[in-house]
Amino acid sequence: METVAIFGVGLIGGSFGLALREAGYTGRIVGVSSPATIARAIALRAIDEGMPSTEAAAAADLIFLAQPIGVIIETIGAIAASLSPQALVTDAGSTKSAILAAANSQIRGNLFLGGHPMAGKEARGVEAASADLFRGRVWALTPSRQEDLQQPQCRDFVQWLEKIGAIPRILDAAEHDRIVALTSHLPQLASTALAAMLADQLSTTPAVHGPGLEDMTRLALSSYEIWADILATNRENVASALESYIASLQAVHKNVVTLANSDIRHLFEQGSGFSRLLRDASN
Amino acid sequence: METVAIFGVGLIGGSFGLALREAGYTGRIVGVSSPATIARAIALRAIDEGMPSTEAAAAADLIFLAQPIGVIIETIGAIAASLSPQALVTDAGSTKSAILAAANSQIRGNLFLGGHPMAGKEARGVEAASADLFRGRVWALTPSRQEDLQQPQCRDFVQWLEKIGAIPRILDAAEHDRIVALTSHLPQLASTALAAMLADQLSTTPAVHGPGLEDMTRLALSSYEIWADILATNRENVASALESYIASLQAVHKNVVTLANSDIRHLFEQGSGFSRLLRDASN
Repeated sequence: METVAIFGVGLIGGSFGLALREAGYTGRIVGVSSPATIARAIALRAIDEGMPSTEAAAAADLIFLAQPIGVIIETIGAIAASLSPQALVTDAGSTKSAILAAANSQIRGNLFLGGHPMAGKEARGVEAASADLFRGRVWALTPSRQEDLQQPQCRDFVQWLEKIGAIPRILDAAEHDRIVALTSHLPQLASTALAAMLADQLSTTPAVHGPGLEDMTRLALSSYEIWADILATNRENVASALESYIASLQAVHKNVVTLANSDIRHLFEQGSGFSRLLRDASN
Repeated sequence: METVAIFGVGLIGGSFGLALREAGYTGRIVGVSSPATIARAIALRAIDEGMPSTEAAAAADLIFLAQPIGVIIETIGAIAASLSPQALVTDAGSTKSAILAAANSQIRGNLFLGGHPMAGKEARGVEAASADLFRGRVWALTPSRQEDLQQPQCRDFVQWLEKIGAIPRILDAAEHDRIVALTSHLPQLASTALAAMLADQLSTTPAVHGPGLEDMTRLALSSYEIWADILATNRENVASALESYIASLQAVHKNVVTLANSDIRHLFEQGSGFSRLLRDASN
């Protein structure tokens, strides 16, 4: 892996460059982004130099697509014919099925390995990038074929993921998308729907609120720009997750109205059990 | 204010004792709780001594009821006949209308001032108490009659609230209950319903999840014991808040299914606007 090309040098792309360097990578890191971003990313030592898209695709052995999902899909089409013979293409998109479908139909003779680092923070852009963003975090990998992972390019890439502290986890793309609809896209929409409803119902900031309201509305700060592509490429799973959540709330509503204490107690126990397991698994 | 009686020396009651001492209160602080709790509270200097309920009610000029809502309502009936003539009774219950109704019907010739400190943390019990728990936090006050606040006992109490760093906020009890249904009780149930549904849908801890899932399921850790009384005494407001939230989620669902981007964008903007205002108001 002598040359890495990072397409989209924002929080994720920039952090990947910084993390590779910190882990001892001595090859060349090129970036494909706007001139202003390239200049900032070079100053921050996240990349060595900028390059036009097809030139970068031809020069690199690892192509890392860290753009919004729609741009990743466009880039796959734009660079497919320029890739060097043994290059591996991977990505950091939040949904995997649509990206894999694009890669399978357009990339011929090169390996594509779907990826999704489960890391992020509220701040965006290369200024927020850090070498330890992926440390201790799951990095989902969704190969088209399991045997792809045995190819030298993939083994090399996975070793670098381990060196930067990420925890590679192999998943089927469809299973990935079903799970993140429940564990990432639904929590986002639950927070947005709560905050939007409260904005409607309360004419001003609330006079009194519980300490948990800030937790429950933190995700609502997210920009729609990121979420438009995620929702568009995972529509059925997200719709189904919302239906399950609405059904769960309707059960709570019925139990509150009828004061069915033993049912509400059961929901609290089930909920706190899940929340404790999640915390145990994350620590 | 020569003697303060704290009924229920847990996180809130214990913190009130510690906060009064730190703010320079030199009178006597007695506690009404189980013998084991009294012993721990004395050791932590949250109270000076323990006392039986009616004895404490007779001895104190300020009675602070920091028990679960149902116990507060029982205590009001139990101590009403034992209060000394000028004593002020106040409380820390999370809903106010049911408590005020009990106080108005049972306490004769003494002032009752409803209260609700908007403070708390995950840990419970007097061991978790701290003198600065109320610092910078709203302390809602719901008088039966506005003019009660001009009585010397109430003015004295409100001054102590300010000395311990709390921010007194006067509200009508019904308005308080309507607002906390939206800003405290609904967020709790939204978190519990989400975590309980995920426990159902995912057989194990999720292979991949977004960084916000822990935020969205933190409240689900809460114990049902605290919530049973809150839901029972604020049933109509909570049911109505749940209905509004379900309607908001149904609008999101419809927009996701039909890819109505401009509508979803509007919800994200409305949600992030509310969330930013909430954070600005809290800082």
